[in-house]
Amino acid sequence: MELYSGYINKLVDELAALPGIGSKSAQRLAFHLINMPQDKVERLAKVMTEAKANVRYCSQCYTLTDSEVCPICAKTNRHKDTIMVVENTRDLAAYEKTGKYEGVYHVLHGAISPMIGIGPGDIKIKELVERCAGDVSEVILATNSSLEGETTAMYISKLIKPMGIKVTRIASGVPVGGDLEYIDEVTLSRALDGRLEM
Amino acid sequence: MELYSGYINKLVDELAALPGIGSKSAQRLAFHLINMPQDKVERLAKVMTEAKANVRYCSQCYTLTDSEVCPICAKTNRHKDTIMVVENTRDLAAYEKTGKYEGVYHVLHGAISPMIGIGPGDIKIKELVERCAGDVSEVILATNSSLEGETTAMYISKLIKPMGIKVTRIASGVPVGGDLEYIDEVTLSRALDGRLEM
Repeated sequence: MELYSGYINKLVDELAALPGIGSKSAQRLAFHLINMPQDKVERLAKVMTEAKANVRYCSQCYTLTDSEVCPICAKTNRHKDTIMVVENTRDLAAYEKTGKYEGVYHVLHGAISPMIGIGPGDIKIKELVERCAGDVSEVILATNSSLEGETTAMYISKLIKPMGIKVTRIASGVPVGGDLEYIDEVTLSRALDGRLEM
Repeated sequence: MELYSGYINKLVDELAALPGIGSKSAQRLAFHLINMPQDKVERLAKVMTEAKANVRYCSQCYTLTDSEVCPICAKTNRHKDTIMVVENTRDLAAYEKTGKYEGVYHVLHGAISPMIGIGPGDIKIKELVERCAGDVSEVILATNSSLEGETTAMYISKLIKPMGIKVTRIASGVPVGGDLEYIDEVTLSRALDGRLEM
C-alpha cells in the first residue's frame, strides 16, 4: 500500500536509498523537508547538484576538491617529499584535523578487495607510483587496519620499496582512552609488537 | 579550519542541519552524493523541490497530500462520521498501516505545548471544530500519550463533547510484545486502569 501521496512517496523512497537512512528516518526527513521554507529546500537541492557538478579529483593527490589543485597540495609550506596514502577524502580530513602532519597526501579512493572485485587497477595506485618517480623520500601507508587496508598497504609497499623510497605503516595499537578489556586480541598483540621504550 | 573545499563544506553543512544527521553522517552522505551518478543527484534534488512545491494540506482532513482532497478523504467507502485526530501525517500513516480503521482523520500538525509557545490557535483545532458542526458521530483522540498529547486531547474533548459528539481516547497500556519489567510505572498503572474482562 502506498502510504502517502505521490510526491511524498517518491521523496521517501529517494531518501531511504541513501546510506545509513532507514525507512523511518526517511519519512522523518521527508516531512522535515516539506515543512522547511521553499527557499531553503531549493538551496539544499542547488548545493547538492553544484557539489556533484563541480567536485573533481586534485590533479596531484586525487582528493575530492573543486579546484585543479587541492588547498593542501597548493600550500607552499607542506613537505612535498612525504606522501601519506589514505583510502578516501574523509580519512584525509581525519588526519588533517590532528594538525600534526606536514606532508602531502595520496587518496586511493578505495582499497584492494578481491571479495567485491576491486583490484589494484581500480584504485589510484598507478598514479601513486607515477608520483613516486619524482622527488619522494617517504611514503606513509595510512590505509585502514582492515583486511582490505592491510592487503593494499602490503601491495603498495612491494611496488614502492624497490624504488629506494622509505615506506612506513601507521601504528596499530590500543586507541587512546580505550579500555583494554574491550579491545580485540589482534589489536592487543599489535600493540605489544609495536611497544616503544619509555 | 575548513576541512574540505568550498562545495563539499557547503554540502556537509546543509546536510548536518537536517534532523537526526550528525556531522559524521553528513560527511558520509556528502561523499556518497558526490560519488553518485550526476543524473541520480539531479533526480533527488528535483524530487525534493517538487515535493516541497506540490505538497499541501488536504482541504478536509489537513493531512499533507498533493491533491485538493487526500486519497483517504476521497474514498467513498470510509465512514466520514468517525474522525481520528492525530498530531501529524506520519501518525496517520502509522494508524493507516494497521488496516483496521475505516473512518477518516484530522491532522493537527502539532500538539499544544505552552513550554515552546504552541497554543490551541497554532494547530488545526478550529478546523476540527468546524468539521464537527457537520454529520460527525465520534471523534477518536489519537494524539501521543506525552504531556503535550494529553493536554491537547483534554482541550479538544472539552470543546467537542458539549456538541453532543462521542469523544474517545485511544487506550494506553503495555505495548504488544513489551516486557513488563522494562515498562514505566505510568504506563503500567494506565494498563491496569484500562483492563478488560476476558
